[in-house]
Amino acid sequence: MEKISTSNNVCEIIKKRKTMRSYIKKEIPKEDLQEILSVTESCPTALNKQGYQIYVVKNQETKDKLCLAAQSQKQVSEADVVLVFFADLERGYQRNSDKKSFFYSVQDATIATSYCQIAAHALGIGCCWVGAFKENEVIKVCKTKKNLRPISMLTLGYTDPEYQKKIEAKGKKRKDPKRMFKFL
Amino acid sequence: MEKISTSNNVCEIIKKRKTMRSYIKKEIPKEDLQEILSVTESCPTALNKQGYQIYVVKNQETKDKLCLAAQSQKQVSEADVVLVFFADLERGYQRNSDKKSFFYSVQDATIATSYCQIAAHALGIGCCWVGAFKENEVIKVCKTKKNLRPISMLTLGYTDPEYQKKIEAKGKKRKDPKRMFKFL
Repeated sequence: MEKISTSNNVCEIIKKRKTMRSYIKKEIPKEDLQEILSVTESCPTALNKQGYQIYVVKNQETKDKLCLAAQSQKQVSEADVVLVFFADLERGYQRNSDKKSFFYSVQDATIATSYCQIAAHALGIGCCWVGAFKENEVIKVCKTKKNLRPISMLTLGYTDPEYQKKIEAKGKKRKDPKRMFKFL
Repeated sequence: MEKISTSNNVCEIIKKRKTMRSYIKKEIPKEDLQEILSVTESCPTALNKQGYQIYVVKNQETKDKLCLAAQSQKQVSEADVVLVFFADLERGYQRNSDKKSFFYSVQDATIATSYCQIAAHALGIGCCWVGAFKENEVIKVCKTKKNLRPISMLTLGYTDPEYQKKIEAKGKKRKDPKRMFKFL
């Protein structure tokens, strides 16, 4: 397998990602949103069952309701697009031995969110992973069926360059790698 | 936020990723492994708690034991490096209201695996996400403490160019996007 020419660039770009919680009023072009979704669905899932579903929310009223469901985190209202990732308990892989359909569907939805986030970032779109929300309220707002359980949201939007610089200048706070990795 | 110059390239590279289950005997350079781990720990986690731990396994005997724990999937033995991702139930975010520490730690470990996979792929290293294994056996092999629960493994190694071409030529099997995305 040959090293892909821009490979280090890919790693460098990913490492520069920071959570962006404030957005300006500027629409994400359709083709960029399409590309983000296309990268997302290229992600692996357990037994390739694609045990997730994504609601792509542009409607302002719906975003405002999702904002309320998410402890009024304002980035949910401000974002141009909010993506809601659901674990699909019917579609996801079920291991007969242990009935772990939820376990694998949660992972599928989480993998999709991760791929999606990196794609948005690479396209210069700011984004914030929202994990704290009232599940039942999100289900109500999105009018989903029983097989879908909300796992995460991503808020997408362009950021003010000054805000972005300020956030990036702060760097990332991470634990000592010795606490994260063990070598055997 | 400006579009990053090689952005489309990043998306294109990610979309080309395919699962590689067969490896040649060639070591991954230390600096590449370091870069992969560095991208991994740049990933977001719930409340930045980094509720995961990664065991980096190079030892052949340990890889062979992990292979047995994972339904004898041969890529686990063949890989140059096997990464085992654990949810750290002590370190991960716990929402007092619903005691969901496991829920968030599973996501943290899954996000880390996703970022790691993309970094390895970008560096030209083949990789396979292994999700089916006997948890208790993995715990025994890695001699972990009670707070760690194995969520996923990634097998990393270089592939034979002919094998790689064959796999890539097959393309990706994915469901109709209409079944994956809903627009609100």
